[in-house]
Amino acid sequence: MKKILFYIALCCTSSSIQAQTFKADSAVLKQMSNHILTNYQCYNDLRYLCKQIGHRISGSEQAAQAVEWGKKTLEKTGCDRVFLQEVMVPHWVRGEESAQIISGKGVVSNIKLSSLGNAVGTGPNGLQAQLLMINNIDELKRINPETVKGKIVFFNFRFDQKNINTFESYGPCVYYRWGAPSEASKLGAIAVVIRSVSSAYDDKPHTGSLHYDPKYPTIPAVAISNTAADALELQMSKDNKVAMHLRTTCQMLPDVKSYNVVGEIKGSENPEEIICFGGHLDSWDIGEGANDDGAGVVQAIEALRVFKELGIRPKRTIRAILFMNEENGLRGGTKYAELAEQNNEKHILAIESDAGGGTPLGFSMTMESEKRAKIKSWASLLLPYGLYKFDAEGGGADIGPLHRKFGTPVMELSPDSQRYFDMHHSDNDVFENVHRRELSLGAIALSHMVYLVSLYGL
Amino acid sequence: MKKILFYIALCCTSSSIQAQTFKADSAVLKQMSNHILTNYQCYNDLRYLCKQIGHRISGSEQAAQAVEWGKKTLEKTGCDRVFLQEVMVPHWVRGEESAQIISGKGVVSNIKLSSLGNAVGTGPNGLQAQLLMINNIDELKRINPETVKGKIVFFNFRFDQKNINTFESYGPCVYYRWGAPSEASKLGAIAVVIRSVSSAYDDKPHTGSLHYDPKYPTIPAVAISNTAADALELQMSKDNKVAMHLRTTCQMLPDVKSYNVVGEIKGSENPEEIICFGGHLDSWDIGEGANDDGAGVVQAIEALRVFKELGIRPKRTIRAILFMNEENGLRGGTKYAELAEQNNEKHILAIESDAGGGTPLGFSMTMESEKRAKIKSWASLLLPYGLYKFDAEGGGADIGPLHRKFGTPVMELSPDSQRYFDMHHSDNDVFENVHRRELSLGAIALSHMVYLVSLYGL
Repeated sequence: MKKILFYIALCCTSSSIQAQTFKADSAVLKQMSNHILTNYQCYNDLRYLCKQIGHRISGSEQAAQAVEWGKKTLEKTGCDRVFLQEVMVPHWVRGEESAQIISGKGVVSNIKLSSLGNAVGTGPNGLQAQLLMINNIDELKRINPETVKGKIVFFNFRFDQKNINTFESYGPCVYYRWGAPSEASKLGAIAVVIRSVSSAYDDKPHTGSLHYDPKYPTIPAVAISNTAADALELQMSKDNKVAMHLRTTCQMLPDVKSYNVVGEIKGSENPEEIICFGGHLDSWDIGEGANDDGAGVVQAIEALRVFKELGIRPKRTIRAILFMNEENGLRGGTKYAELAEQNNEKHILAIESDAGGGTPLGFSMTMESEKRAKIKSWASLLLPYGLYKFDAEGGGADIGPLHRKFGTPVMELSPDSQRYFDMHHSDNDVFENVHRRELSLGAIALSHMVYLVSLYGL
Repeated sequence: MKKILFYIALCCTSSSIQAQTFKADSAVLKQMSNHILTNYQCYNDLRYLCKQIGHRISGSEQAAQAVEWGKKTLEKTGCDRVFLQEVMVPHWVRGEESAQIISGKGVVSNIKLSSLGNAVGTGPNGLQAQLLMINNIDELKRINPETVKGKIVFFNFRFDQKNINTFESYGPCVYYRWGAPSEASKLGAIAVVIRSVSSAYDDKPHTGSLHYDPKYPTIPAVAISNTAADALELQMSKDNKVAMHLRTTCQMLPDVKSYNVVGEIKGSENPEEIICFGGHLDSWDIGEGANDDGAGVVQAIEALRVFKELGIRPKRTIRAILFMNEENGLRGGTKYAELAEQNNEKHILAIESDAGGGTPLGFSMTMESEKRAKIKSWASLLLPYGLYKFDAEGGGADIGPLHRKFGTPVMELSPDSQRYFDMHHSDNDVFENVHRRELSLGAIALSHMVYLVSLYGL
């Protein structure tokens, strides 16, 4: 009986200690939230990055300016140290691009397009050929290769509007951007046009990386908007002799020296345990890279800054990383992991914010189940800030190398995804399409997670 | 032992039956979702309502057009019957409005404003007086009434950006729009200017209803934007002789005959049990009433239509209601409850969608705890559609009279609130600021709730 009473007493004490601790944590989280929601520094940072620097593809002058800006902005937070990690990055340039649709009867109309990132150009004279509409890769595989030879293949694969989480629709579409151009080349196609990987019905084409299979000739590849693709589909359903004249002068130039930018606050008790979090500083060369991934960059800066401004010393080391070259090479993320190995660093968690500046709903994560359980034990602290999703698998491109090399637990902020692919990789991705409060809530979610892991470890 | 085994067998059977039922329900919910997400009829309806009819304050020609449109659109769904409920509504008209700020040194500058709904005008010559800045009602109560006499009171009460749910910030601000003008009048003020009830930092003033206490003189009352209020606050902090010239010709005209519009599908098994759901057809006379509450209107229509288009016969009677005059009188909602009493109708649930077309996160509700528990037992069916909030109290203005008269259980759709008060009651509330997928997800949430309650009762 005494044993039982002792056990009950112990339970009560430990649960009351936990309740008190949670209350104290809850007060800190609220303080962070209030600070971020009333100062909006991350929103002002994003305005600067988008409006004063603009889009910033790896290797560009703007990317260099963004590195300079990132370094200064991190230094201004007053964190312990800011350092650069040198990395050679690809330097793809878009050049000029134009295209015309030519009907069977010879009627010519212009069509907007966007070369896919890393693609080769047509050369200054362009090329012209009949269009062949292919709805999906199975159709391509079944087709007589002779039909494909010398044609421009139009991959008319649609973004599936039925998924509630739009990221589930992104994956299947990306295949047509990333791998399908080489599949068409294999059968003798001379160029590829894809339907934009986008949920939007507007006239903005969406770019993004392609990957050439070295076994086949590299051929030009471009995206057209969803509305242009609808019109082309209709035209081709009535006219089996539609051709395209395509002229793109994009090319890959020699690699350029660039940098990851890192800001750090040393942990007061376990400085050797590092929690890193970040977004990528490079963007595509259209739009302003506001959601992708200016948002992640300024949220990471904010998450570091809020510790300094509220005078919170983390027990473990925290690091904001502005990665270079996520979009078309992942050189920055790869370099970060290499240097972590070289410097014998121990990362207990890596967090990425690269899913836009929308209202955050939780974190996706890839880690051992007991670590996930530990994070989920904080759910009641995070729910008041709208975070309820902790079950999905996930991570992020830039922190992937760290995870693959060391098995580092990784997470990614999960914002509401409804608008993201309307903007992604297009001229729609501008500052005006990021909302002040939503962006700030993402910065709060990131700060909270970093705070809790810095306090309790993982 | 036998008893225990029997009990286990019973549990297994009943839980396996429940699992099968849930599986069947889940398939229906997915079918509804797919249909709505690939047809976007509610989005097209909203475009028509906003762009072809436009804003539609009670008593206006556009409100009459909206009734006509609502009736036709409901009829086109093929539902069992569509009927109108006649109701007399107030007819407030804005007229002309302009204002100038006059500094102590006589420098005159224009300032944008919006008369508050139901307010009296200044008369054609306007009025001019010194401005008195009051930050909150306590300050007004402590002040020497002589200081207020003959002045224009500027209520400089701010929208609290610290709340995560912006509706929590709305309530305290609304007091300054609804009741404070009469409080100022009581002390001898001759007009009132309020800081817009809005989360946005832009130059758009936000209107909304005021209520005059019959004990005091009715005085003109207008809103200025948050940025204009910031500028005025700054100016008044440096200059204690700032005056305003205000000219508004708004007035209340005689009541006008109008209508609620109702579409109904009779229940196949319990037709006497009614589940009603709706939004309000009237809007303010600026913007287009897209979020407030075109969204709720088209979602209600969609929730009725999806039953017809998928050939689902509800077991209980379901009714989509397009209420008239939510904004400045609540006459439609009141009339609906009166007629329900007169016709001896039994409403088992009333749902309102009047919190905008953003991504839905759940439902707030006011009902007995066992009814809430029943609804929460469906949480796993609704979670895949992003609905996780079922704990808040709530209902809606239009269905309030039903709840007060009969104790009818009420709910309101809870969309993400971050952007709502940027747009609410202002020129920002236009079709372009409603997102196709987000709006559709709200229609899906509504359809799902209606489906489950029509099947299982409440």
